[in-house]
Amino acid sequence: MDYVNGPGRNHLFVPGPVNIPDQVIRAMNRNNEDYRSPAVPALTKTLLEDVKKIFKTTTGTPFLIPTTGTGAWESALTNTLSPGDRIVSFLIGQFSLLWIDQQQRLKFNVDVVESEWGQGANLDVLASKLAEDRSHTIKAICIVHNETATGVTNNLATVRKLLDEYRHPALLLVDGVSSICALDFRMDEWGIDVALTGSQKALSLPTGMGIVCASPKALEAAKTAKSLRVFFDWNDYLKFYKLGTYWPYTPSIQLLYGLRAALDLIFEEGLDNVIERHSRLGKATRLAVEAWGLKNCTQKEEWYSNTVTAVVVPPYIDSTEIVRTAWKKYNMNLGLGLNKVAGKVFRIGHLGNLNECQLLGCLAGVEMILRDVGYPVKLGSGVGAACAYLQNNVPLIPSRI
Amino acid sequence: MDYVNGPGRNHLFVPGPVNIPDQVIRAMNRNNEDYRSPAVPALTKTLLEDVKKIFKTTTGTPFLIPTTGTGAWESALTNTLSPGDRIVSFLIGQFSLLWIDQQQRLKFNVDVVESEWGQGANLDVLASKLAEDRSHTIKAICIVHNETATGVTNNLATVRKLLDEYRHPALLLVDGVSSICALDFRMDEWGIDVALTGSQKALSLPTGMGIVCASPKALEAAKTAKSLRVFFDWNDYLKFYKLGTYWPYTPSIQLLYGLRAALDLIFEEGLDNVIERHSRLGKATRLAVEAWGLKNCTQKEEWYSNTVTAVVVPPYIDSTEIVRTAWKKYNMNLGLGLNKVAGKVFRIGHLGNLNECQLLGCLAGVEMILRDVGYPVKLGSGVGAACAYLQNNVPLIPSRI
Amino acid sequence: MDYVNGPGRNHLFVPGPVNIPDQVIRAMNRNNEDYRSPAVPALTKTLLEDVKKIFKTTTGTPFLIPTTGTGAWESALTNTLSPGDRIVSFLIGQFSLLWIDQQQRLKFNVDVVESEWGQGANLDVLASKLAEDRSHTIKAICIVHNETATGVTNNLATVRKLLDEYRHPALLLVDGVSSICALDFRMDEWGIDVALTGSQKALSLPTGMGIVCASPKALEAAKTAKSLRVFFDWNDYLKFYKLGTYWPYTPSIQLLYGLRAALDLIFEEGLDNVIERHSRLGKATRLAVEAWGLKNCTQKEEWYSNTVTAVVVPPYIDSTEIVRTAWKKYNMNLGLGLNKVAGKVFRIGHLGNLNECQLLGCLAGVEMILRDVGYPVKLGSGVGAACAYLQNNVPLIPSRI
Amino acid sequence: MDYVNGPGRNHLFVPGPVNIPDQVIRAMNRNNEDYRSPAVPALTKTLLEDVKKIFKTTTGTPFLIPTTGTGAWESALTNTLSPGDRIVSFLIGQFSLLWIDQQQRLKFNVDVVESEWGQGANLDVLASKLAEDRSHTIKAICIVHNETATGVTNNLATVRKLLDEYRHPALLLVDGVSSICALDFRMDEWGIDVALTGSQKALSLPTGMGIVCASPKALEAAKTAKSLRVFFDWNDYLKFYKLGTYWPYTPSIQLLYGLRAALDLIFEEGLDNVIERHSRLGKATRLAVEAWGLKNCTQKEEWYSNTVTAVVVPPYIDSTEIVRTAWKKYNMNLGLGLNKVAGKVFRIGHLGNLNECQLLGCLAGVEMILRDVGYPVKLGSGVGAACAYLQNNVPLIPSRI
Repeated sequence: MDYVNGPGRNHLFVPGPVNIPDQVIRAMNRNNEDYRSPAVPALTKTLLEDVKKIFKTTTGTPFLIPTTGTGAWESALTNTLSPGDRIVSFLIGQFSLLWIDQQQRLKFNVDVVESEWGQGANLDVLASKLAEDRSHTIKAICIVHNETATGVTNNLATVRKLLDEYRHPALLLVDGVSSICALDFRMDEWGIDVALTGSQKALSLPTGMGIVCASPKALEAAKTAKSLRVFFDWNDYLKFYKLGTYWPYTPSIQLLYGLRAALDLIFEEGLDNVIERHSRLGKATRLAVEAWGLKNCTQKEEWYSNTVTAVVVPPYIDSTEIVRTAWKKYNMNLGLGLNKVAGKVFRIGHLGNLNECQLLGCLAGVEMILRDVGYPVKLGSGVGAACAYLQNNVPLIPSRI
Repeated sequence: MDYVNGPGRNHLFVPGPVNIPDQVIRAMNRNNEDYRSPAVPALTKTLLEDVKKIFKTTTGTPFLIPTTGTGAWESALTNTLSPGDRIVSFLIGQFSLLWIDQQQRLKFNVDVVESEWGQGANLDVLASKLAEDRSHTIKAICIVHNETATGVTNNLATVRKLLDEYRHPALLLVDGVSSICALDFRMDEWGIDVALTGSQKALSLPTGMGIVCASPKALEAAKTAKSLRVFFDWNDYLKFYKLGTYWPYTPSIQLLYGLRAALDLIFEEGLDNVIERHSRLGKATRLAVEAWGLKNCTQKEEWYSNTVTAVVVPPYIDSTEIVRTAWKKYNMNLGLGLNKVAGKVFRIGHLGNLNECQLLGCLAGVEMILRDVGYPVKLGSGVGAACAYLQNNVPLIPSRI
Repeated sequence: MDYVNGPGRNHLFVPGPVNIPDQVIRAMNRNNEDYRSPAVPALTKTLLEDVKKIFKTTTGTPFLIPTTGTGAWESALTNTLSPGDRIVSFLIGQFSLLWIDQQQRLKFNVDVVESEWGQGANLDVLASKLAEDRSHTIKAICIVHNETATGVTNNLATVRKLLDEYRHPALLLVDGVSSICALDFRMDEWGIDVALTGSQKALSLPTGMGIVCASPKALEAAKTAKSLRVFFDWNDYLKFYKLGTYWPYTPSIQLLYGLRAALDLIFEEGLDNVIERHSRLGKATRLAVEAWGLKNCTQKEEWYSNTVTAVVVPPYIDSTEIVRTAWKKYNMNLGLGLNKVAGKVFRIGHLGNLNECQLLGCLAGVEMILRDVGYPVKLGSGVGAACAYLQNNVPLIPSRI
Repeated sequence: MDYVNGPGRNHLFVPGPVNIPDQVIRAMNRNNEDYRSPAVPALTKTLLEDVKKIFKTTTGTPFLIPTTGTGAWESALTNTLSPGDRIVSFLIGQFSLLWIDQQQRLKFNVDVVESEWGQGANLDVLASKLAEDRSHTIKAICIVHNETATGVTNNLATVRKLLDEYRHPALLLVDGVSSICALDFRMDEWGIDVALTGSQKALSLPTGMGIVCASPKALEAAKTAKSLRVFFDWNDYLKFYKLGTYWPYTPSIQLLYGLRAALDLIFEEGLDNVIERHSRLGKATRLAVEAWGLKNCTQKEEWYSNTVTAVVVPPYIDSTEIVRTAWKKYNMNLGLGLNKVAGKVFRIGHLGNLNECQLLGCLAGVEMILRDVGYPVKLGSGVGAACAYLQNNVPLIPSRI
C-alpha cells in the first residue's frame, strides 16, 4: 500500500497539504463515534468557540464543513449572493482564476480585475469601481488573501479602507486558504464578511474540512440570498446550532479531534508566535533565493508571501524538471508552476507546523537540484544566507527555556 | 481530549458511523502527501477500478467526493437534472424525507409517494405513475434502498422491472448509503443510473467521502443538466480523469489509503460473504427482538433490513430512555427513533466490519437496558434465540481452517 | 502483514496480553525521542511517583524494566537473594511452577510447598515452616498472588499475619502479574518486600515493561545480595535516579507514554472502582459457569479469582477443542489449559480495560462453542445469569451522569 | 502529555534511538493479540528467517529478546561463558567500557585492551595475546564493532584473520548495536560467534528488542556454559523453537509487527543500498566537519564510522552547550560527549531510516549552533561541502525512476 517508497522522511514543501504534527496524527488515530451522543456536541462547542480565534473574530459565526477549499468557496458565495449579482473579483494567479471560474459558473456577474501574475490585486481599479458604483450594484468583493500560485499576499486592510472611504455596503469575501493561521489575519478589524480556509493548509490537518466564518452582515445576507444550495446551506447548520446538536449531517469525528489538537498546538505556541515563525521562514526562503541569483515571482516586497515562495527559473530551465528531480532523487515535494507560469516557476511552500531546520534541509536540497538541472548555483550559498538571518532571529522554544 | 470516557470498549451500534477495522485505522495513520506527485494518481487509479466492484458495475463511472451522504445526494441530483424537472420520490422515513427536502429545495418538481413509516416504497403508485406518463415527463425515480430510520429495505429489482415494463426512460437514482457493501446491490443488473454511499457506513471508514457511481446514461444526462453546480460537478472530475491526475481539488490522502485498506478487507472476505454475514446479523437480531416479545418497526418480512433493526417499544416506555441508559451505564450507542417514530423505536445498527459475538454483547446489553427501563424481558432470552441460529450458521473463518 | 484475518473485532479473552484501550494505543503512536533530553526524565519522574499508587505503597521504590514478567521475577530474586539462600515457594499451577523453576536454576534452595491445582497456597505448611525456623534460615517467601493457570487468588494478608506472628524476618516476594491493578493489592499494609507485574496484564499495555517495586528492606537486601546480575541490577537504576536522568540504558519511549496514559485512565476511573469492576466481571463469569452446569477449577470460594476463570470441561470433551473453535469460528481467544490441566480446563481472562457487554459477548460465544463441541448447554443460560447480576450492580459511568 | 513541545518536527540526530519510519509506526499501531494463537508463530517464523539476512548469516540462530542492548550483551556472555573464563575485551570508548564493566561484574576474567578514545581496538595487542596463548586459556574475544561514543568502527575481518592465523578457538562475540543494518557486517564470512543489535538503532524501531544471533559453535558452547541465567537462557528459546510456538514468555506483538515492517523496508531498499546510503551520510557529515575547521574525534580514516560522527570542539567551547542549544532553540537532538570526552565532543548520529536532506537540515542547524556558542563558522560552508559530494552521489530512488 505504500507506493513508490523512498528512504527517510518525505520533505513536503508544497503549499498544502502540509505536514501534520504528530500530536494531531495521534489525536485522529481513533475509531468512529456516535455523533449524536453527548460527547460530540460538547467537543464541537469548544471547537466553534476556539476556531474564531484564528480568524480574530468575536462576532463571526464559524461553520466546519466536510468539504475542501473549493466547497468552502461555494459555501461563501451561495449563502450570501443571488444569481446575477454583480461582484468584483481579482485575477492574479491560478487559485483566484479558479474561484472566478466558480463565480461565473454559479451565474454571478463578475467584474474580473486582472493583474499580471506576480502582482497583487489592482486596488486602484477597485477604488474606481467603488467610486463609480453610487447605486451599489456591486454586491460583493471577492479576494484571495494569499495567491498560492504566485506567492502574492494582498493587502486586505486597504480593501477595507476603500470600502469605508466610499461607504460602500458590498460584502467582503476573502479566501484565506493559504493565509489564515500563518499570516496576519483580522476578520473583525478588517470588516471581512466571509473568511474561509481549508484544514490541510496552515492548520496542518488532513484535507476534508472547509472552515468558513460569517459576519453578522453575511448571516443577514444569507436570509435573502437566492442561490440554490442544500449541502452548503448555513441555515441547516444554524438550526442545529440552536438545538445544541450542531450537525445537520455526519461530521468526521477524526477531523474534529484533529482540529482540537491542532488548535491546542497553535494556542500553546501562541497565534502571534505562529505568524512570526511564518514570517521568519518566508524571509529566510527569500534570502536563499536571492543568494542563488534567482528571481522571486512576486514583483514587489509589499506582496511577499510568508507561506509560499514562487521562484522564477532561467529561461533555459524547465521548472517541472526541478519538481521531478526533487521527488525522484531527494524524496522532496516542491510545488509546480501552474497555468501561465507552468515551467517558469517552482514553488516552495513554507507553512504549517514547520521549523527552521526543516526548511534549511529543503533549501539545501533545492541547491543540489538546481545543479542537477544545470543551474550553476554556489552550493551552500542560499542555506548560508538563510542561516545568517535565522541564527539571529530564532527565539528559544518557550517551554524549554 | 477524551470527553466522557468510560471503561472498556465503546459498543457502537448506531447504523453509522460504524466501527473502523484496525487495519483501516492503521492505513490512515499517516502524514499528508503531495497529491500531485505520481504516487497519489497511481493509488487513485486502483481505487476507481476496485470501487466499481462494490456497486457491481462494470460500466459505471465512480466519483470519490470529499463530502458526506448529503453531498452525495446533491451530486447525484444536480449532475443529472435541471430545475423544474419532475421526479418521483418515496417518503418512507427520516432519510428519504431529508432527501426529498433537498430535492424540493433544489427546485425539482417532486411527486412524493408516501408510505406509513415501517412500510416500503409504494411501488403500485409508481406503476400507475409510469403507466400514465406516456409523454415521459418524469425525469427520474429517486429511491432510498435501505431506509435507516425504520429498517426498511426496498426492492430495487421491482423498480427496474416496472421501468422496463413501461419502457420508461426515467433515470433511476438510488441512495445506497446504508446498503452498499452490506446488502445485495446490483447496479448494472438493476439498471441503476446513479448509486451512492458514504464512507462511514458499510465500508467502515471515517466520514468524509461520498462515493457516487454514474451509469453511461447518467453521464450523458450530465452534459445537459442545468442545475448549477461547481464543487459537485462531475465534469471537473472527468476532465482530470482524462489527464490521469484524477483530482480537481485536494483529496484526503488518509481516506484514500483507508479506502484501499477497506476494499482489500472486503475482497479478502469476499463481497458475497460480507453480504451473507450481514444477513446472519440481521436475522439474529430479529430473532432476539421476537424472543423479547417486542415488535419490529418493519411491517413485513419482505422489507426486513439486514443493516439496521428498528425496535418498537411498549407505549409505556420512552425509547429515548433506552438510548440514554445504553450510553450512561453500558458504554453502548444505540440509534434514536427519529421524527415520527421518536420515543417509539430504538435502533440497532448491525452493519460494517462486525462479527457475531460483538452483536451478542450488544443484545445482552439491550436486555439489561430493557429491564433498567421497566420492560420485563427474560434475561438471556434474546441472546439465546440469536445464538441458536448463529451457532448453526456461522461458517469457519476461511483463513483459519 | 495481517495473518489469518477474520471479520470484526478480535475477542481477546486470554488472561493477558489484554486489550489496549484506544487512548493508550494513541499515546504510543509516536516516533522515538532522545531519552537524554530533559523531556524524558520529566515524564519518568511522574511515572515513578504515580506507579507507586497501583501498588498501594508510599515507601516502595519502583523500577520500570524493559523486560517481561519472567525478567521481573529474575529482578526480584537476584537483587535480594544469594545463591544457596533458602526460600519457601508455593506450587499451585503453571506460573508458580515456572517461577520455582527459575528459582532453582538461579541456585536458590527452594522449599516447594505444593497444592493440588485448583487450590490456593498451603499456608498451614508455611506456618509450620516458620514455626520451626527459629534460626531464620528462610530468607524469602515467594508467592504468586493470582495463579493465572487455575484462577486461584492467594491470601497475602494471611501470609503477612503468619510472618508477623512468628516474627520472621524473611522477605516477602510477590508475583502480582495477573493481580496488580485488578485485584485488591496493598504492598505497604501487607508488608510486601518485592511486588511485580507486567505491562500487558491489568495495566492494559503492550508487553515489554516489567514493573518491580521494592520495599526499603528489599533495597537494603540488595546491598548484600550476591546473585550475579547486571541488566537486572537495581543499583544501576538507583545510581541514575540520584542523577535525575533515571535510565541506565535506553527505555522504550513509547511504553513510557503508554504507561502515562494507562495510569491516567486508571486514576480517572479510580483504582478502587477498577478493582470493583473486576470483581463484577469475575462474579458474572462464575455465575455463567454455574448456569452452564460446569465446574470452576478453583476449588473454594475464598480463592476465586476476579481476573481469570478456569472452567473444567466434562471428561468427554477436550478443552483444547474449545479454544480452537473460539479462534476458528468466532474470532475469539480463550486461554488453554496448561500442563496438569491441559485438555481439562479452558480459561476466560477478564482483566484490564474491559466492560460488561464485552464480557457478555464472550460468554455468549462460549455458549455456542460449548454446543459446537458437544456439550448440551442451554443457550442464553449463562448470559442470562450474568445479566441478572450485572444489571443490578453496574454503576452509571461517572463522567456521563 | 507532550512535554516541552516545540514547533515542527524534532530533528533526532543522536546515534539511537533513531527516527521510526511511518510504515513501522503504522504497523505497530495495534491492539494486543494472543501470542499462543496460530498467527503469532506464523509471523515469528518469517522474522527468524529474515532477520538472519541482516546479519549475513545462513547458519546462525537468532533470538528476539524483549530487552535492550545491555540485555543482549548479557545474553551473549552468559550463554557462552562460565564465571572465571578469560576473555579479551577492547576499551575504546563509553560503550565498550560499559560492556567490560558488565563482563567483570559477571565474574569473567577480562584482559582489557585499552586504546586512546578516538582510536580503534588495538589489534596488535590481540595478536600478541593470541600468539602467547598456546593453551587456549582465552575463551572469547569481545569487541564492539562500532563504538558509538567516539565514532570508531573496528575492523572485524582483521580480528577473524588473527584468530585464524593463530588457529585460536576463542569465541568471537561482537556488539553490532550501532553497526548492523547500517555498516558492512558479515557474520558468517567473519566467523562471528555471537552478534547482537538493538531494535532502536539502524533497524529504526522503538527500544525493546535485543536481537542476538548465535553461530553453531556458540550454541554448542551454550550447552556447557555455567553462567547462571534464566530470562536470557537461549535453551528456553530453543525448546520453544522445536515446539513451533517460539516464545518461552510473552513477546511484544507490536514489536514483532514492527520488525516485519522494518525488514520489509530494508529488503525493499536493498541491504547493500542501505549500507551505501549510510556511507554517503557519513562521508557528507565528515566533509561538513572538515569545512567547519573542526576535528573528527576519530583519529584515522580507517576507523571512520558511517553511523555516528563525534566532533571535537575547540577548548574554549563546552560541547554540552551545543547539545543544549540544539534542543532549546532548534528542536534538534545531538549526542553528548560521554565520560572522557564529555564537554569535548558532540555527536551527530546518522543512522537508520534517514535521507540526505534530513541530514543537511541537521548540518545547517549545527552551523547556526556553532555560531550561537561562539565558534566563527562560515555559515553554509559545511552544508555546501556536503552538498557538493551528495549531489554527485545520491542515486535516483529506484521505485521512482
